[in-house]
Amino acid sequence: MNSELQRPIRPAKITDGMTVSQLTDSLKDCAFGAGRLWEAVDIYREMVSDRECTKFFGLAGAMVPAGMRQIVSDLIRDREIDILVTTGANLVHDIIESLGLHHYKGTDATDDVELKHNSINRIYDVFLPEEHFSRLEETLQPMFRELPQKLSISGFLAHIGGKLEDENSILRSAYDMGVPVYCPAIQDSIIGLQAWLYKQAKPLEVDVFSDMKGLIDRCYEAKRAGVLIVGGGVPKNFILQSMLVTPKSFDYAIQLTLDRPETGGLSGATLDEARSWGKVGENARSVTVYSDATITLPIIIAAAKSGQTKSF
Amino acid sequence: MNSELQRPIRPAKITDGMTVSQLTDSLKDCAFGAGRLWEAVDIYREMVSDRECTKFFGLAGAMVPAGMRQIVSDLIRDREIDILVTTGANLVHDIIESLGLHHYKGTDATDDVELKHNSINRIYDVFLPEEHFSRLEETLQPMFRELPQKLSISGFLAHIGGKLEDENSILRSAYDMGVPVYCPAIQDSIIGLQAWLYKQAKPLEVDVFSDMKGLIDRCYEAKRAGVLIVGGGVPKNFILQSMLVTPKSFDYAIQLTLDRPETGGLSGATLDEARSWGKVGENARSVTVYSDATITLPIIIAAAKSGQTKSF
Amino acid sequence: MNSELQRPIRPAKITDGMTVSQLTDSLKDCAFGAGRLWEAVDIYREMVSDRECTKFFGLAGAMVPAGMRQIVSDLIRDREIDILVTTGANLVHDIIESLGLHHYKGTDATDDVELKHNSINRIYDVFLPEEHFSRLEETLQPMFRELPQKLSISGFLAHIGGKLEDENSILRSAYDMGVPVYCPAIQDSIIGLQAWLYKQAKPLEVDVFSDMKGLIDRCYEAKRAGVLIVGGGVPKNFILQSMLVTPKSFDYAIQLTLDRPETGGLSGATLDEARSWGKVGENARSVTVYSDATITLPIIIAAAKSGQTKSF
Amino acid sequence: MNSELQRPIRPAKITDGMTVSQLTDSLKDCAFGAGRLWEAVDIYREMVSDRECTKFFGLAGAMVPAGMRQIVSDLIRDREIDILVTTGANLVHDIIESLGLHHYKGTDATDDVELKHNSINRIYDVFLPEEHFSRLEETLQPMFRELPQKLSISGFLAHIGGKLEDENSILRSAYDMGVPVYCPAIQDSIIGLQAWLYKQAKPLEVDVFSDMKGLIDRCYEAKRAGVLIVGGGVPKNFILQSMLVTPKSFDYAIQLTLDRPETGGLSGATLDEARSWGKVGENARSVTVYSDATITLPIIIAAAKSGQTKSF
Repeated sequence: MNSELQRPIRPAKITDGMTVSQLTDSLKDCAFGAGRLWEAVDIYREMVSDRECTKFFGLAGAMVPAGMRQIVSDLIRDREIDILVTTGANLVHDIIESLGLHHYKGTDATDDVELKHNSINRIYDVFLPEEHFSRLEETLQPMFRELPQKLSISGFLAHIGGKLEDENSILRSAYDMGVPVYCPAIQDSIIGLQAWLYKQAKPLEVDVFSDMKGLIDRCYEAKRAGVLIVGGGVPKNFILQSMLVTPKSFDYAIQLTLDRPETGGLSGATLDEARSWGKVGENARSVTVYSDATITLPIIIAAAKSGQTKSF
Repeated sequence: MNSELQRPIRPAKITDGMTVSQLTDSLKDCAFGAGRLWEAVDIYREMVSDRECTKFFGLAGAMVPAGMRQIVSDLIRDREIDILVTTGANLVHDIIESLGLHHYKGTDATDDVELKHNSINRIYDVFLPEEHFSRLEETLQPMFRELPQKLSISGFLAHIGGKLEDENSILRSAYDMGVPVYCPAIQDSIIGLQAWLYKQAKPLEVDVFSDMKGLIDRCYEAKRAGVLIVGGGVPKNFILQSMLVTPKSFDYAIQLTLDRPETGGLSGATLDEARSWGKVGENARSVTVYSDATITLPIIIAAAKSGQTKSF
Repeated sequence: MNSELQRPIRPAKITDGMTVSQLTDSLKDCAFGAGRLWEAVDIYREMVSDRECTKFFGLAGAMVPAGMRQIVSDLIRDREIDILVTTGANLVHDIIESLGLHHYKGTDATDDVELKHNSINRIYDVFLPEEHFSRLEETLQPMFRELPQKLSISGFLAHIGGKLEDENSILRSAYDMGVPVYCPAIQDSIIGLQAWLYKQAKPLEVDVFSDMKGLIDRCYEAKRAGVLIVGGGVPKNFILQSMLVTPKSFDYAIQLTLDRPETGGLSGATLDEARSWGKVGENARSVTVYSDATITLPIIIAAAKSGQTKSF
Repeated sequence: MNSELQRPIRPAKITDGMTVSQLTDSLKDCAFGAGRLWEAVDIYREMVSDRECTKFFGLAGAMVPAGMRQIVSDLIRDREIDILVTTGANLVHDIIESLGLHHYKGTDATDDVELKHNSINRIYDVFLPEEHFSRLEETLQPMFRELPQKLSISGFLAHIGGKLEDENSILRSAYDMGVPVYCPAIQDSIIGLQAWLYKQAKPLEVDVFSDMKGLIDRCYEAKRAGVLIVGGGVPKNFILQSMLVTPKSFDYAIQLTLDRPETGGLSGATLDEARSWGKVGENARSVTVYSDATITLPIIIAAAKSGQTKSF
């Protein structure tokens, strides 16, 4: 028989009370998103059980406001993330929640001018009282005063992380576990605006390029490397490009995104494209799941946590 | 406190061996796709436990080749589908699998001209040997000979369903359970090409509009009505428009799709838009989950099957 | 030099008062959507200047409400469309406009329940007074009475087209020019609801499969064949599948869509996938432009109308 | 008549040799993407003719490799951009082209491992010889040596811009015209890797937050402010957030993107969402065109350049 026709599609079967792991196992021989989801679970399982693999995690999109914060901080504490690259927004919202302040479930079908009049900021269907940012300011400005005058972005973030008391905080968890947090466009966030405010009066020098060395050293040292990319954006590229100056490349790569390849942007670029650059290895396992990451991230982590269901 | 700020986002938490139902419950107070997925599960649970609700199911996209066939036929046998509207393609592939023939896991990164030379047809990452269509022809042509000369599309499909021996077949399950299968563009499929072939020699008259009556009668009779729309396309509109000539409207509506509203097409139209037409009721519960349906359909069905996890 | 590196990207240059044709020519050596748009123009020019090419046109999406009606009817009258395949919705809205009734510019940021109370139906950012459908009914019911009792869908539509007095009507233009209009899911539209109403009292038999012969015969007879697909949906597949039973395949194929391949649906499938089926030829020229078709269709037609700007 | 029904849709009409401006004018009373494109042209015309408006330009995505470089540098020289915010990738590729090196038209349907073996890097359908990056290194390293030891990112980029000899360069044009170029995640690019290399041997301190002051000062000073956002990403947010600490907001805002709102990411967020934050003004004119920006950017600039066609 034709060599292309070796793996029959076997329909998924739903059973009462099935676990997440049983569900994804049931998608093993399905196609489209279902098959890719299984593949992502399978790669993720292999990656986290590979003790010699350095595990990178790219976190873009407003994942903290959406409710993904605990998953990320648990992954850090469970040593499933060795290096975190994220956006300023996720860190701002992490700090806000660390202060005991909430985001709220709202709706995207709303009158934004009216929200403005009520001092509510919207992030799709999440509402955030504007006054939270005053609390953020009251928190950050005193922290800034204790900073060394010169530091790197990851040093700057570790300083903040060490001051937060919430153990569920991403920044605090990273601080506790010695996981570096890289955030190349940190100024593109309310943290940036707070730093601008601070710098009106006091000196603060955070170097743009200082973090490159630590990141690239980790790439050089990695026996094997894997990455789980949530969203795309700067975290995706910053992680992948760090391999360019090493003789290595990523051995495992998973992307969860709804961005599309056809616009040519890096966020939506296929992981195969990254092979042409040598960012992802020729023989690496990789998969992109084109679906909402707030759905696929919890599934993959839950499925992987339970291990493979042998009896299935 | 501001009335818009009543429901704090509560982060999802992943635990060992959690069930699908526990996972979706954990997304209850999340936002974006995660929150919408929970909403879909919640609406679906309410809909299937509403004994006076007539349950419509719209199935577009190549869901059968992707491995979603068993889920749909189980839903029919579990009486969670009262009326099925689908595409010719799903039925063609259902019949093929009913003959014991397989679809195969392939890849979208391939040389399609080479596939052509190997007589393999591709549906994204599914491969299908061209010879399956010869088997389909050998199956359908004799069936056609036993058809009454005049009939409706649903009658035509019930005739085929009754002849299939595979209990996992969608058409056979619908036949067994007395569930009508509507397929407005049946000619837009290999079944259409087989009918063309048959009509070269023998008369066959399948009326375009005959199914309207049965469908609309069911809408009139329905005490309440709910719909789960997978994909979009003709099944979505055909189901929703059937309410237009009744004084009623859908009480529950869920759509699983990656189509987008901005192009103005009906597939991607919001369910709110359907309220302006009176297709979906003013007070109906509705949600669209913008994610790959081969992922969200299995999750919703699995979560609903387990009922709500009270202890969570 | 490497054979892959033969065509340098040459940046687009904008000049004062440039024509559409000059603009698309300026995109010739660009990439992503820009390059694909140029390719579409180039294929379209070759296709319409090929006198032995039978030209198919697939029209899905709510293109008439969006304002694309005149473009399509002009293409028919200019003999750039030999065979039209479309959706019931486009025909319903074409008939409405033929009665001198308008669609209106609205907004997608609106309260659909309030629209319902005002008897306004919404199609993304288009508003339509519900009463137009009463006028449609008053128009169609008398027309139906003059129909032969048995006919094909295209015959049914030609009958309506011949009765419309608006020369800008798509149906009327097709009637005048002898262009068959195929609409496989005609019942999935208000026309279908009107036919249901009519059939309560009078017999009307429109056969589902009758149009296959005429369409397939045209495919057999075509020396060469080309297709411009707007959107996707049933029109796309119905056109492409008609080649399956002939020894031929499409020589030119252009698709304008925002649907994406990864969900596995036919609407978003690549035209390369169609090569594995033999619908599009091995050596055919084909391109998909992933952009809003209400933008790309006018550009391509305008650019092609002006011919290639030699002096550019 | 109902107040919602004031503006009839008027179909677009294509004429021989029409200019881009005539085409977009013809879309004025169309809907969906066509109507939004016209709106974008109209807002852009008003914005650039408003002499008291400070004009921001956000450039994300791989627009330079796609062939949009000349358009951007012309806009700078034509004083249609007062402040540019972009990504490291666009600047890297701008510098490469400034050295007389080319990007090449390739294809996305390719074997990336084979490309890797041929030392070709792929960006969707653009190919780039890997050796270009050696030339980039030879160019940047000597430039770095002449840098002051401490500077801001925009200062760093102005230094490079001033050294480039190609007048079509974006960086050079900005330098010539005194337009600041902000690039918050500059380290997320090959420039970042070159800086890492340089810092192995020599000190270089580029401060992350220094650019905030200049940008925010411009926001404070602006009598009115407008922004054209190509893509989304960091440039979008960095521009919009800069208004947060001023009493002002953007008066004109246009976004050209295929990113979607439903994932909750900032790239796809609606400009209405930005009103809830006070980034975009309550009475500002704004529109998002959901289409490939390599198509819509050239059209909008070409249409605006010709002014409104009065005779139309």
